[in-house]
Amino acid sequence: MTFEGGEGAGKTTQIGRLADWLAGRGIEVVRTREPGGTEGAEAVRALLVEGEAGRWQPLAELLLVAAARADHLSRLIEPALARGAWVLCDRYADSTRVYQGGAGGLEPALIDRLHEEIMQARVPDLTLLLDLPVATGLARRHADGNGGRFEAKGAAFHEAVRRAYLELASAEPARIAVIDAAADADAVAGAVRCAVADRLGLAAP
Amino acid sequence: MTFEGGEGAGKTTQIGRLADWLAGRGIEVVRTREPGGTEGAEAVRALLVEGEAGRWQPLAELLLVAAARADHLSRLIEPALARGAWVLCDRYADSTRVYQGGAGGLEPALIDRLHEEIMQARVPDLTLLLDLPVATGLARRHADGNGGRFEAKGAAFHEAVRRAYLELASAEPARIAVIDAAADADAVAGAVRCAVADRLGLAAP
Repeated sequence: MTFEGGEGAGKTTQIGRLADWLAGRGIEVVRTREPGGTEGAEAVRALLVEGEAGRWQPLAELLLVAAARADHLSRLIEPALARGAWVLCDRYADSTRVYQGGAGGLEPALIDRLHEEIMQARVPDLTLLLDLPVATGLARRHADGNGGRFEAKGAAFHEAVRRAYLELASAEPARIAVIDAAADADAVAGAVRCAVADRLGLAAP
Repeated sequence: MTFEGGEGAGKTTQIGRLADWLAGRGIEVVRTREPGGTEGAEAVRALLVEGEAGRWQPLAELLLVAAARADHLSRLIEPALARGAWVLCDRYADSTRVYQGGAGGLEPALIDRLHEEIMQARVPDLTLLLDLPVATGLARRHADGNGGRFEAKGAAFHEAVRRAYLELASAEPARIAVIDAAADADAVAGAVRCAVADRLGLAAP
């Protein structure tokens, strides 16, 4: 299961809330994030998030993200799923489609071919898209002091990110649930639990 | 133009010799290496060459090498070629085919699709394969104290590397010139100059 969304959407908080709820139902939960999640992938992440906004051109950035994902899949995600755990991942392939594709200028078909043909990368069972207006998200990020290379890219970039996410959700409604993340954290957590229960066949929360 | 070969084949020495010879004929020469050659690609190189032999699985390693190559191509190689310089590169895509493909276990077709379809990576005009017996190369490396993650992989791995290189040269004889690198450095430099003059239309040395 993956969580997606722009800056300040509350992914970290909501993954924590859902992980607690699932654990309370006896499910083994593995929380992780991309890029990162394993020692190798975290080293690649450091290359991606440090430095100035133009440090990497889109193709190099795409391949770095893919390298981190390959490590993460083979060393953490696939073994966890194989033993029956639920994996909750903060960002995954949809982030690549959105940040390096729609908003970054690479062809979406190129990104999909990399995932499908070169990497044979797993598709999530469910993706929770935490959606909120760009201004709200950036204001939250500003307030909590979490900056970085992607935040520095400007409002137009983040608007393109939001649009690209919503287009993915329209194209794959069975996999991607859009959650209104502008609501308060309790309400968002409730909506997330309902989406999970509904789509993955758990009893309603 | 690219230089390829196993450990201890003398690539660094021979690139220097050829660069001097070309410069003496008024040609602008850019010497570079892979993985690396640009600030970003050198940072990726550090991830690849440091750590233990099993740090990266083949697919993650392939994608890291490709990310470094994308940066190197767009920021150094393509601009240099566009202004008429000759680029002499220590390792390039054939190293990927050999180290991550033939000797590393990935499908060669997968690597070629990554280069051709995902990256649209340039093919060298000429590749000089410095070929020598594995034992000779490893003994030279041992003598000069240049170790690293790839050297640690053992003789069978390096035999597979040599075989894979020679298979590539058989398949692409017009692009890849095989040079006997077990000879002394002067003789190898002469053979390199002849191959360059012959295939790239310079007057014979």
